[in-house]
Amino acid sequence: MDFTMDSELDKELLALKRHAEWRGKLAIEVKSPIETQEDLSLAYTPGVAQPCLEIAEDEKLAYTYTGKWNTVAVVTDGTAVLGLGDIGPSAAMPVMEGKCALFKSFADIDAIPICIDSKDVDVIVDTIYNISKSFGGINLEDISAPRCFEIEKRLIEKCDIPVFHDDQHGTAIVVCAALLNAIKVTGKESGLLKIVINGAGSAGISIAKMIMQMGFGEIILCDRFGVIYDGASYNNPAQQEMAKVTNKDKVSGDLSDALKDADVFIGVSKGGIVSEDMIRSMAKDPIVFAMANPVPEIMPDEAKKAGAAVVGTGRSDFPNQINNVLAFPGIFRGALDSRASKITEEMKQAAVRAIAAVVDDESLDADHILPDVFDPDVVDNIAKAIIETVHDF
Amino acid sequence: MDFTMDSELDKELLALKRHAEWRGKLAIEVKSPIETQEDLSLAYTPGVAQPCLEIAEDEKLAYTYTGKWNTVAVVTDGTAVLGLGDIGPSAAMPVMEGKCALFKSFADIDAIPICIDSKDVDVIVDTIYNISKSFGGINLEDISAPRCFEIEKRLIEKCDIPVFHDDQHGTAIVVCAALLNAIKVTGKESGLLKIVINGAGSAGISIAKMIMQMGFGEIILCDRFGVIYDGASYNNPAQQEMAKVTNKDKVSGDLSDALKDADVFIGVSKGGIVSEDMIRSMAKDPIVFAMANPVPEIMPDEAKKAGAAVVGTGRSDFPNQINNVLAFPGIFRGALDSRASKITEEMKQAAVRAIAAVVDDESLDADHILPDVFDPDVVDNIAKAIIETVHDF
Repeated sequence: MDFTMDSELDKELLALKRHAEWRGKLAIEVKSPIETQEDLSLAYTPGVAQPCLEIAEDEKLAYTYTGKWNTVAVVTDGTAVLGLGDIGPSAAMPVMEGKCALFKSFADIDAIPICIDSKDVDVIVDTIYNISKSFGGINLEDISAPRCFEIEKRLIEKCDIPVFHDDQHGTAIVVCAALLNAIKVTGKESGLLKIVINGAGSAGISIAKMIMQMGFGEIILCDRFGVIYDGASYNNPAQQEMAKVTNKDKVSGDLSDALKDADVFIGVSKGGIVSEDMIRSMAKDPIVFAMANPVPEIMPDEAKKAGAAVVGTGRSDFPNQINNVLAFPGIFRGALDSRASKITEEMKQAAVRAIAAVVDDESLDADHILPDVFDPDVVDNIAKAIIETVHDF
Repeated sequence: MDFTMDSELDKELLALKRHAEWRGKLAIEVKSPIETQEDLSLAYTPGVAQPCLEIAEDEKLAYTYTGKWNTVAVVTDGTAVLGLGDIGPSAAMPVMEGKCALFKSFADIDAIPICIDSKDVDVIVDTIYNISKSFGGINLEDISAPRCFEIEKRLIEKCDIPVFHDDQHGTAIVVCAALLNAIKVTGKESGLLKIVINGAGSAGISIAKMIMQMGFGEIILCDRFGVIYDGASYNNPAQQEMAKVTNKDKVSGDLSDALKDADVFIGVSKGGIVSEDMIRSMAKDPIVFAMANPVPEIMPDEAKKAGAAVVGTGRSDFPNQINNVLAFPGIFRGALDSRASKITEEMKQAAVRAIAAVVDDESLDADHILPDVFDPDVVDNIAKAIIETVHDF
């Protein structure tokens, strides 16, 4: 590790200090001047009655006369915040504000943080649906599995605006983009890969689903109790479902058993749980995405020493940072600009290819499988790709 | 009237054009820069974990580390929007955005417009309560009577942040401030006034309640069916309640009967329904607040010709504009800055006196009973007065 406990503590204190200075990372900016009686009569009464009447006659005009076209709600119940777990709606707010700041900074989207004070799936679905007319899209965030699956599914069915659980799909999209380019670098054959995913929460399951949809190869999913296999009984219905469609060779045992001869390791689990010997047991030139934060499942230097051909982590201080911020700003920019009512599988796969394509063939190597998060081409490329999938636009 | 149908149409078209140019009157501004990996690690992961953990331990720290201290939700169900009635949540949005623009422009408060897609009182209360941790205050707006009374009452009971239905209390506060100064100008004796209020919706009833609490005098409340009196049966429970405590002399008949010998007329009703003869039937030097929009109950020149000593309207093109914008920005500024959990009667009365006091004795005359809405002293004066009522601050 290249930072000590001392400097970590310094960074923590600095982050706290900054938050106390900002007192909120967002503010409202007024686009309509309110300085004279004339201003008041145009932006408020009596002039405001006109756009109201137009929208009352044709609801779609909300996209013309209000900010709906560019507004996304970032909603959590505070049950699975970062690595912190169930810290509640008030304590989740700094993360939601931060997410909204990213939406604005990366994609010029006006995002509003909303923290819901309930853990009940019905209550959460109803609350979000009841306020959904106020927004052009809903980004679900940091909601614990398996509740997040049902909440997202029901909201997608009910709402006429895009609903997207970023912890699932954002992560899956960036991992698949990284995998697409890592396959290119290693010369491995897509479709024939043996892929082990450690961590079977919302991110792990969503990554597994997307890998299957994109046909990269066979998957073994593991959680803290070991390999997930058909025939066992799981409380989480999403894991039960995954047991049926993954692990075709019926491997049993733990992560080290699963990793034997695997081409790819994808960790969304816990720091330090993968050893060099486990990497050595993998197939030739293995691809290792160790995304636990802040300590990866295996440190990049150790993984490389043990033979890993490509290593990615969630951290910015190592090469190949696998970070959601590469996906969600462009995905929502494209969804809003195409006036899509849903974010489809086709859009998500288009986003995967769009992210991977930002790294041109000259730049692509084992330490450069993903674009820099601040590369402005990323958002533009994704948005363009998504708009192209919307045939009736 | 000093504007013709043609220029009204021009103004309507101009307001529509402006709204199409703005495409939303609000945008998000990011206070925490997000330009480098260092910025990301402070405003988002991993640094953001620190304020989260602090708030998880002490929820009050949300006021230190997030925007809660300065954020208000402006919430409607779209059932009583301006004079337009029940136009629904989407069509109500231009008004809510406008209100939020006023919050920012007048009191530097970050206000978020939320339109709820339900008319059910339970659903509205639950939805607002469920998201209330995200805000420092709730401004209810344009919700039809009598539902607005119950919604506000229940939310005040449930929430630990100020909840304020502006159409009721904002209007009542500004009317009472206008009345306080009109009494001074006319030399009438507060406490002995005979006051007629025409319009028994949320504004009219709230004005009546506040006038009683401030002890200006006796009230007769009228609606479109005539004088409200004890013994009659009213569907609206708020009217039923008012019938018991107003109209002590048991006047019956219509508005013209009520106005005989009255000192004060307060109209929150319909344009043109008060005649010069009705003004002539009032007591000497009557005070006339004809607040119907855009056409007042009686035009100021007619009222004055018939003997009115002081005339106020809701319009900016006549003297004495009685406008909510004189109240709500300062009230929320004071409530937020004092970290009040409720907006009390004492605070509202302090706001009345604070608004009236902005007009100094030298400026005060029949055409200057209220400050200009753009006078910056108004917000400051109200906020200061409200903070002073919070003894434990």
